[in-house]
Parts: sequence; C-alpha cells; structure tokens
Amino acid sequence: MRFNVSSSELVKALSAVSGAVPNKATLPILETILFKSEDGSLRLTATDLEISIIEYMDADIDEDGAVAIPARRLTETLRQLPDIPVSFEVDEKFNVKFRTDKGTYKLVGEDPDEFPEVPNLDEGHQLETTKKDMIKAIDKTLFAVSNDDLRPAMMGVYFDIGPEESKFVATDGHRLVRYIKKDLTSDEEMNFIVPEKALNLVQKALHADECVLTITEDHARFKSGNTIVITRLINEQYPNYDSVIPRENDKTLIIDKEQMLATVKRVAIFSSSTTRQIRLQMHPDKLTIRAEDIDMSSEAKETIGCEYDNEEMEIGFNAKYLADVLGNVDDEEVYFEFSTPNRAGIVKPSGEEENEQMLMLVMPVMLNTYA
Amino acid sequence: MRFNVSSSELVKALSAVSGAVPNKATLPILETILFKSEDGSLRLTATDLEISIIEYMDADIDEDGAVAIPARRLTETLRQLPDIPVSFEVDEKFNVKFRTDKGTYKLVGEDPDEFPEVPNLDEGHQLETTKKDMIKAIDKTLFAVSNDDLRPAMMGVYFDIGPEESKFVATDGHRLVRYIKKDLTSDEEMNFIVPEKALNLVQKALHADECVLTITEDHARFKSGNTIVITRLINEQYPNYDSVIPRENDKTLIIDKEQMLATVKRVAIFSSSTTRQIRLQMHPDKLTIRAEDIDMSSEAKETIGCEYDNEEMEIGFNAKYLADVLGNVDDEEVYFEFSTPNRAGIVKPSGEEENEQMLMLVMPVMLNTYA
Repeated sequence: MRFNVSSSELVKALSAVSGAVPNKATLPILETILFKSEDGSLRLTATDLEISIIEYMDADIDEDGAVAIPARRLTETLRQLPDIPVSFEVDEKFNVKFRTDKGTYKLVGEDPDEFPEVPNLDEGHQLETTKKDMIKAIDKTLFAVSNDDLRPAMMGVYFDIGPEESKFVATDGHRLVRYIKKDLTSDEEMNFIVPEKALNLVQKALHADECVLTITEDHARFKSGNTIVITRLINEQYPNYDSVIPRENDKTLIIDKEQMLATVKRVAIFSSSTTRQIRLQMHPDKLTIRAEDIDMSSEAKETIGCEYDNEEMEIGFNAKYLADVLGNVDDEEVYFEFSTPNRAGIVKPSGEEENEQMLMLVMPVMLNTYA
Repeated sequence: MRFNVSSSELVKALSAVSGAVPNKATLPILETILFKSEDGSLRLTATDLEISIIEYMDADIDEDGAVAIPARRLTETLRQLPDIPVSFEVDEKFNVKFRTDKGTYKLVGEDPDEFPEVPNLDEGHQLETTKKDMIKAIDKTLFAVSNDDLRPAMMGVYFDIGPEESKFVATDGHRLVRYIKKDLTSDEEMNFIVPEKALNLVQKALHADECVLTITEDHARFKSGNTIVITRLINEQYPNYDSVIPRENDKTLIIDKEQMLATVKRVAIFSSSTTRQIRLQMHPDKLTIRAEDIDMSSEAKETIGCEYDNEEMEIGFNAKYLADVLGNVDDEEVYFEFSTPNRAGIVKPSGEEENEQMLMLVMPVMLNTYA
C-alpha cells in the first residue's frame, strides 16, 4: 500500500476517529486505526467493539491496500509536524514507513484482517435530521444520564421517535429531562437507548450540516459529512418515566435564573457534604433558600425576589441536582411548578422555540427538621 | 471582632494567601486563615509550617480582634458573590457570622491563639531587588530543580549572592542551569537554598514592582507590596556544581531553536519509552537526530541545517531533558558547546541582556549501538 496525504488533513481525520480508540485495550489491535484505500480515497476506522468511528479523507493513492497502524504513536508524530505532505509505504509484512522532507519514520503495523468487523447498517430505518437539531437534543438531555451500572437502561438517552413528534429523555432517578421536538417525525415508531459515551462522541463528530440516523435492532449509526459513528444500543426496557411527572401542579414560581443559580451554589457550600440538602421556602413574592451543616455548625440563608402567590411551602432538594437543572436552562427566567413537598418539582424555561418543548424535574428530599 | 470589607478585595486577599494552606493538613488549624486587625487594616495569614503567606488588606474595623476562619468554605462562598460589602462579626466563642444584602452565613472559627507563630525575620540581612528580576531568576532556574527526596539539597534553587554578582543555580543531576545577574550584589556573602514550592508561591505572590528579600540562618522572606512570603530554607550543603561544567569545549553548534525543539519532540516519540534516548549526529553544517525503540521496532531520523564546522561527532541525550533545556531558551538561535561524547553538552541563548549570563548543561547518555 502506498499513499500521499497532507499531514494536517491526516491529523484532523485521526482526531475524528480517535475517540473510539480505548485508553486501555484488552486486544492490542483495538489500539490501532485501520487504514484502507477505497475508491481513490482513504477510510480510517477505530473501534472499541461498542462504538466505531469511520472517517473518509482525500488521499493520493499510489497502490491500494490496508493496514492497521498504532494510533497513539502516529497521531503524536503527525501533531508535531507543520502542514507538509507525507508519503506512506506499507510492505507485505505491514511495516509502515512514512517520510516528509524533514525525515523518515518507521513503525510496525498490524494485519488489517485482524481488525474487528464494523457492523453494516445499510438495511436499517433511516431518519434525516440536521446537525443542529441532533446536537441540541443531545446537549439538553445528556447531563441527566445515570452512571449507575445497576440500572443499565438509564445509562443512555432514550430516543422515542414517532409519527407525531420525537421525544428525548434522560434520568438518573434524581432528576429527569424530557425534550420534545415536534418537527422531527418518522412514519414508523422507533425507540431505542443510545449509550452516553456514544452521544459524547457524536457531539464531537458531527461536522457537516446534515445528520442521517440509521437504526437496526442492535445498533445506531450517525452519519454527517465524511464521518460515521456506529454504536451498539442499550438493549433494555426504558423505565415508564411518564408516571413520575406530576400532573396537577397548582403552585407556580417564576424567578431569575442566574440569580437563583448563584444563590443555590452559594448556600450549598454550607449544606452537609453528605446530603447536599438545601431547603426552599416559598413566601408571597420571595424565596428563601437555606442550608445547614450540623457537623460543622455552619448555616446560610439568602432571600431573593420572585413571582409566587400561592400558600407558603417548604421543599427540600439536593443542591447539586437543582443546580444542574438550572444550569440547563438558557432563558433569563425559569418557571417552577410544585404540588406538595413530597412530589417532584417541575422546571421549565420561560421561553421556548417553536416546535420544541422542554420539561425537567427534580425529586425532592425529605427535610430533617433541625431547628 | 467586627469588620467590613469588599467581597472582591477579600477574595483577592484570600487567593493571595491560599497557596500556603495545605491540601491535607495534619493539624486542623492549618486549614484556617488567621484574620487579625492591625493598625486599622486587616492581616491574613496562612501557613503549612514550612511556608507562610501574609497579606495586608484595607478594611473598616469596628472592633479589633482576631480569629482563625476555615479557608476553603469562606473562599468558596465569597467567590460566588458579586462585588458587594460584607460585614463580619465574631463572638467570644469564635463563631463567625457574615452578612451581605443577599443573606447571612454562619461558620465556626478557631481560637487565634492556636494558630502557629510565623517566624519574625526583622533581624535578617536585607537585599532589595525588583519583582521583574526576582521572577526572571526563578523562571529561568525552577524547571531544573530535582524532586528526589534522597538529595534534599537539590530540591530547591541555590541563591549565591555576593559583592560581585548573584548566581542562581538549579540541577537534578541530569541537567543544570546557572543564571548570573551581575547588577544584583550584596556586600555580605549570602548563600542559601530556597525550596521549589516556596518559589512557585513567590512567583504568584509578587504584585508590586519592588521585592525585598530578608535572610536569616533558617528562613527567607520575600516582601512585595502587601504580600509577604516566608519560607524555611533547605539546610544542606549545595553540591559543587562548578566542577561539572566542562571548561574546554572546542565544538560549537549554532541552530534554530524552534526547529530543533520540534525535531527533538517528534523524534523522541520513536525512542524507547524507558530511556527516552535520542542521538545527535553532527556533520559539517547539518545535524541528524535519530531515535529507535527496539521493543516496538520503530525508528525515526530527521536532518536539519545548522552551523557546525568541527569533526563529526555523535552524542546521546535523554530527549526530555534536552527538550526542557531548549524550551527554556527565549532566543531564536541557540548555541551548543561540546567537548567529547561523554561530557556534558552546554547550551546558551544566542543573545543576552546586559548584566546577565545564562548557562545550561545536559548530561549525555551512553549510546547503545543498535545497528
């Protein structure tokens, strides 16, 4: 195999696939990137057996072939080069030699036949969307994904795509986010759970404006421009999250988001480091947020203005979960809806784009009365 | 004790001293910052028993007193506040209450009498210099300090200040740096070793233009503006580094610094990960840098232009040490001086400011002949 490429183009392609190279590989072949000539261009593939990334790049191919090249050493060397042409030569024993006008470098490649097969999804259901919409759906939900191995279904984002609308849901049992996109539909119902790591990689991999999603029983493929991300799906039943969302919420509180977030963070510093519990006390047009740490004999109390005209109520939250949810609101104001202190608090942005609907909820914590 | 301060001024003062607060303190009192009113202003002190930092700040003192306040919790809270006035009140049991127009916060302070005494250096030798000169002397030497506990003398920078000139020296046995400042002198000979950590903190702490150094038998004090850093000295004999510097170096090589540094870094990727050995082959007006990793069957070779007109010579270096030394040169060109492959290579910047002289050396490694 012989080919010529630009060093900076190759660095870009290597960066695009490198997210799928495992840090600690069980099989040495997984630490390589598969180079293969295909119809006059070069295809790079990396995989950790769960997630694969494929990148196509322009190259001047002198002799067709394939080789698996150690990822780290190749990437490190090329990153140190300025933008210059690089010529690769691979012999029949997969020794790789590359040269620039600065010098020559040799390393030992692996037999491309040893490289794991990447699933072919050409038979799957297709859904066409845009990079912008896909990135937003991922951005809005990813933070709430669980990392609890004992509840594997919740370790990914649930995609529920139907003829009416698409729903994207994530929850870790403490907070939940449901993002609805009304103008993304499919005649055929599709629902599946995409693992967190794959979505992190998709976020980075989408470079072109369009994003084509292909789904089979076990896999999802995200294609955008020259980049393809293929991931195994989480083969579990997603929990019935709808039953957790309280329907009748008579108490509404409207408040400045930045001010509330800053207050929550400040007061939380005085909460118990075990429970992170803070208490929200709602009075007409003002909200008092308190925390106390009995072990450290410390406490804090802040009061901020808000719109609230219902009966006084006190509700407890884990400050970290509340801050995460507030941080995920882009608007200046945020709407809270409450029913009783033992039911979830609902959080919504004050404004919404057409065809979108965002709902988050935070589970309350039982308040221990300390004073 | 009662005082009023601006939250942002207090955050600045807390940041200034926080470098001396140990991450894991053996004594809980070391996790606090001592607040003391002094002549109408506020003095903050932090110490890890080796290094102490004192910062003076403006405050409106209503009632004199002192208290030791937990550093982390106070700093975290204040960082989350906008720039607003904060009123502190400390009762006789050292309970600390502070309030802003946003809220009130309580935490438990400690008895200021428990706080360790900070050494008084008023009787020491004084040396007046500038922040600029002191920072440069530290910057140029700190990278070469050893972190080998078995050779404690080398774990700091050696200050050798005399009537003719000042020398600043650091070495870890693999490389050495000697920075001479001819216009910094003292009638009295002073030489002492300042620990690396203290110099890191001094670098950050010097805010005013001047820097006054005070030295006693066991301690050094760096004073600049409102900030004072006091450190225990390393009470050891500094090695006789002069004998390591080869005197007769007949071979001179002049080369572009950036180009050589990039080449060393690139070629080093192909060196053995244990030895990091690279070899420099000098030919008339060209330098070839090679590395090989026999375990990985990989190798690299690059050739770059240089000024060199002596006999051909091959010398081996640890790529990391060579790169560190090159990275410490500010000029476009760098001068190397060599005698034989088993003696240290000397590295000098091509240009130098008046009254300064910089010399670095890198010990060679024995080359294993592999081909």
